[in-house]
Amino acid sequence: MASQNNRQRLRDINNTGFGPNSGVEGGRLINTDGSTNLTKTGIPIWERTSVYHTLLRMKRSHFLIFIFIAYTSVNLFFALIYFATGVEHLIGADTSPTYFGKFLEAFFFSSQTLTTVGYGRVAPSGILTNVIASAESLAGILIFALMTGLIYGRFARPRAYLLFSPNIIIAPFKDGKALMLRTATYKNNHLTDVEAQLTLAMHVQEQGKTVTRFYPLKMEFAKINSLALSWTMVHPIDEESPLYNFTKEDVEESKMEVIVIVKAFDDHFSNIVQQRTSYTYKQVIYGAKFLPMFERAYDGSHTILELDKINAHEMVELPEQVLA
Amino acid sequence: MASQNNRQRLRDINNTGFGPNSGVEGGRLINTDGSTNLTKTGIPIWERTSVYHTLLRMKRSHFLIFIFIAYTSVNLFFALIYFATGVEHLIGADTSPTYFGKFLEAFFFSSQTLTTVGYGRVAPSGILTNVIASAESLAGILIFALMTGLIYGRFARPRAYLLFSPNIIIAPFKDGKALMLRTATYKNNHLTDVEAQLTLAMHVQEQGKTVTRFYPLKMEFAKINSLALSWTMVHPIDEESPLYNFTKEDVEESKMEVIVIVKAFDDHFSNIVQQRTSYTYKQVIYGAKFLPMFERAYDGSHTILELDKINAHEMVELPEQVLA
Amino acid sequence: MASQNNRQRLRDINNTGFGPNSGVEGGRLINTDGSTNLTKTGIPIWERTSVYHTLLRMKRSHFLIFIFIAYTSVNLFFALIYFATGVEHLIGADTSPTYFGKFLEAFFFSSQTLTTVGYGRVAPSGILTNVIASAESLAGILIFALMTGLIYGRFARPRAYLLFSPNIIIAPFKDGKALMLRTATYKNNHLTDVEAQLTLAMHVQEQGKTVTRFYPLKMEFAKINSLALSWTMVHPIDEESPLYNFTKEDVEESKMEVIVIVKAFDDHFSNIVQQRTSYTYKQVIYGAKFLPMFERAYDGSHTILELDKINAHEMVELPEQVLA
Amino acid sequence: MASQNNRQRLRDINNTGFGPNSGVEGGRLINTDGSTNLTKTGIPIWERTSVYHTLLRMKRSHFLIFIFIAYTSVNLFFALIYFATGVEHLIGADTSPTYFGKFLEAFFFSSQTLTTVGYGRVAPSGILTNVIASAESLAGILIFALMTGLIYGRFARPRAYLLFSPNIIIAPFKDGKALMLRTATYKNNHLTDVEAQLTLAMHVQEQGKTVTRFYPLKMEFAKINSLALSWTMVHPIDEESPLYNFTKEDVEESKMEVIVIVKAFDDHFSNIVQQRTSYTYKQVIYGAKFLPMFERAYDGSHTILELDKINAHEMVELPEQVLA
Repeated sequence: MASQNNRQRLRDINNTGFGPNSGVEGGRLINTDGSTNLTKTGIPIWERTSVYHTLLRMKRSHFLIFIFIAYTSVNLFFALIYFATGVEHLIGADTSPTYFGKFLEAFFFSSQTLTTVGYGRVAPSGILTNVIASAESLAGILIFALMTGLIYGRFARPRAYLLFSPNIIIAPFKDGKALMLRTATYKNNHLTDVEAQLTLAMHVQEQGKTVTRFYPLKMEFAKINSLALSWTMVHPIDEESPLYNFTKEDVEESKMEVIVIVKAFDDHFSNIVQQRTSYTYKQVIYGAKFLPMFERAYDGSHTILELDKINAHEMVELPEQVLA
Repeated sequence: MASQNNRQRLRDINNTGFGPNSGVEGGRLINTDGSTNLTKTGIPIWERTSVYHTLLRMKRSHFLIFIFIAYTSVNLFFALIYFATGVEHLIGADTSPTYFGKFLEAFFFSSQTLTTVGYGRVAPSGILTNVIASAESLAGILIFALMTGLIYGRFARPRAYLLFSPNIIIAPFKDGKALMLRTATYKNNHLTDVEAQLTLAMHVQEQGKTVTRFYPLKMEFAKINSLALSWTMVHPIDEESPLYNFTKEDVEESKMEVIVIVKAFDDHFSNIVQQRTSYTYKQVIYGAKFLPMFERAYDGSHTILELDKINAHEMVELPEQVLA
Repeated sequence: MASQNNRQRLRDINNTGFGPNSGVEGGRLINTDGSTNLTKTGIPIWERTSVYHTLLRMKRSHFLIFIFIAYTSVNLFFALIYFATGVEHLIGADTSPTYFGKFLEAFFFSSQTLTTVGYGRVAPSGILTNVIASAESLAGILIFALMTGLIYGRFARPRAYLLFSPNIIIAPFKDGKALMLRTATYKNNHLTDVEAQLTLAMHVQEQGKTVTRFYPLKMEFAKINSLALSWTMVHPIDEESPLYNFTKEDVEESKMEVIVIVKAFDDHFSNIVQQRTSYTYKQVIYGAKFLPMFERAYDGSHTILELDKINAHEMVELPEQVLA
Repeated sequence: MASQNNRQRLRDINNTGFGPNSGVEGGRLINTDGSTNLTKTGIPIWERTSVYHTLLRMKRSHFLIFIFIAYTSVNLFFALIYFATGVEHLIGADTSPTYFGKFLEAFFFSSQTLTTVGYGRVAPSGILTNVIASAESLAGILIFALMTGLIYGRFARPRAYLLFSPNIIIAPFKDGKALMLRTATYKNNHLTDVEAQLTLAMHVQEQGKTVTRFYPLKMEFAKINSLALSWTMVHPIDEESPLYNFTKEDVEESKMEVIVIVKAFDDHFSNIVQQRTSYTYKQVIYGAKFLPMFERAYDGSHTILELDKINAHEMVELPEQVLA
């Protein structure tokens, strides 16, 4: 097969952080959201999990539920202690005859102490209860210090807010064709010094076993000064390309995956931001070109970027491959 | 037109993040404050807006109004719940006969709970009211955690604090002339490793339609070690310049725009800071030179930088262009 | 000795930050955790200690103990002042006849003020006591502001979370042999643009006294794009290597130490992270090769990284050295 | 004068951020603490002052005084409002017959509201007083959010903690001599990738007026991998040096100033840190060499860095200058 010859002519790279033996069937290396398709084992889960990373990455709704559960648990914990040591030490508490009523008083006193709202209608008396209340208010302050940090960490976390086209397209380009994908920032952020890196992973047969090979994909422009509108990344499929002379069948057979890393400077965070994504062979469209996704405003005063057109394309004829 | 010839001789760049088709009449690409003159559409506003970016960029007075409104709204929300579930559960509240009086008691109790001040003259009783108060004090703590983060984020946000001269001037320079603009830091910050990038955008006629072309403008010094006083950025208009042989009419016809990006290291934030601005052809002064903006103190012990002279210039004769 | 000849042929480097006279017997330069094996003297301890650095580096359990002690101390301090100025000014306090009982009331009031929980069952009266309580609540807020910052600083501190193989191995490599060590991230973080630097320190006899010489160790790959799985760092022991022709005895005699610095970009912190470690001659295994530490999942959908196999190796025959 | 000839032979640099006309008599450009010896005028002080920068740079004692004054002022402000709107609305307040007593009650209630301690012995009643108290507790929370941010900003601010030798020495070096200064970190921080930049400023007579010229001083090593012990920066005074053939009188006449910028990576802040300093001609010692400032511990287990020896030197004979 001609394509194989070309591929073997090119040096593959083995400094991608993935090994050649990781060849898996159907499993991708990088997920669409940029995370690695990987599980770690061998050490306990609390040692191999960064709680901070996890809480920062968590969806907002999950994070709120987490806070609510944590708050209620600590509340319950202290309420049980007050209950156990005697609700009669909580001066001002309703003298409920039932255990449930007593526990409720303990619970509400606990929550007033934890949040330091401390109305004082119910107040601790006696050494033990006072010590517990003192400890609980300290715990409350520390927990909410943690919350403050986490909430700040979540919204201040530098992110690129890049929208990628759901598909990669193989489009006509100059005298040949090129692999193209498109990105744009979808929030009111502004990126400068934007660099992209495309890496091709292919699972190929070598001496009877499946190995994974990695190739850098050269881009027409690997860096742009400023990402104001959209950016179409272009990898020309020429003699230099590991995809040169590849047919659609070759692509599918090799279970091709294109890993995209974009790094940029966000002038609002004043920080480097990075976003990753990955495309598998199932996301490739053969013979298409992207349609413009911005236009001038009616009054000509500014430009409109239409984010819903990030994947807008029309089908076109691909040129014959010169070498076959 | 000679100028056109020279311009076409030079390679324009198309990695600016703006497209060649974004040609708009009268609309600038970058606003004076460095933001992009752009609107995004196609996805809902809450998805294409970074609340954090917006709250950080907001004017201080607007931010304070935002906080006040947010505080009052949450207060009102909980006050309505207390009111609906019965003010009689708020022990100690004035037994006002009017609905308004009752609502006010609920409102003030709510604010004492939200801020965790909890005087306790009014205190919750009963399961429902206690649960609501418990939820409100949690909400209060989370909201103020957010505020703490936002306030910190606002004042700790690395900024360059650069003052740019309101005009670009075309000044005599060596045997020819040069495009010049001047900048200085206007706060007590100190920048080192300061780099600038000047990009020229021109709207030109090509094959009957208006296209936008971008050219880098070479600077005499594109980097300075330290920005202690002022920095006059100089683009010599020589054979290498896309502005070579341009007349004032050429400049106006092309609706020239000069985009300025300055990046530096601020040793107080210990961070890279960046500031952008842009000049349109209307801000160009032909035949002028900047006057000094610093002088020694009377006692010779230090230097005085006069920030109100950032644009100080005097009109001068421009040399004949050697090549025409 | 042939090895000596080769070593002297190579230029040693003296920009490592360590001096040639620091030759110590048995003492390593860098500890396994990356800290420098160094004591500073000559200025008072409070000037040469960064409290912030120390509190950030402290083990979590120690940090919690530190907070508890600090809280109790400040509490006690203010309790003593209330006690000294008269517990009768604390309205509502139990009128205990004993000093201890009075002090306890002062202590609990103090803790309620410090945490701003302020139940109000006990409240200050009189100018002096009110002023003290006002000062204590201010102190409380400042102290907990500090705590908030510290807690945030601790969990938001960018860290590489790298696990290093406990041993360095001398393995067969191509036609010769190589020095190898292995690393992997052990948390759910993802590093890109990972760079490593290996420096060899040897304590050698020169003109009768022991001096320390430093040599950079060239790596097969000193940079990888992404650290998804594991990374085996390889220093080929060829003619270019300062270890060329070294025997096990040479290594031990020179009290060899290999200093490892890894720098990477963590896309979650959006920051550069760095980790250091060091290996002494006692950690070298001669004639071994690392075994794979990852495998595909049973269902082929993802890869499993087995962290407990970071040091997994099997003994192998080393090739004869070509030059001797 | 031979020295002049050499100086004029070298290209001076004019990208230092200082102008050639800033020549001042006796006034240095950079102060010892790295700040610029500069005053800015022309815009109002509140526009040319970064409050954040100022509060971060302030001495700790001044910062604490600032917080105390701010707290007391806000307290007084609200106390006056409560006093003006009637202390009788503060239920539970001591009914003092004097204005001073009434004001004190208002003041203490104000402080309990501002810190949200809210004992509740005194509580607001009536619409107006409740609204004021509600506003004050909001103000309190915002002010303490600011404090939290500032306190965090102060101790988390990346700093290099470099100690510089108070003197520059002219020492024998190889066959000639060199200008040397020494630095070390004085806290338990560790710097890697340390870069230094030495710039020489000289005030010279040219065509009858004093102008300031800047020259880079080449260093033997301008970058070190790691600053574990001390670093002696060495500028060899050879034919390439702008100081070549300079006599002590030349140095004094030119009011020489050496500006030092050090940049490094601190692995604890995971950030670039920078520190500047400057030496004037009065700080130069002719004919000396630095003495070692570290030694091995008695038990040989680690190295001791003696920070009080940062400037330790002994006088030595300087070699005859070859060219004169």
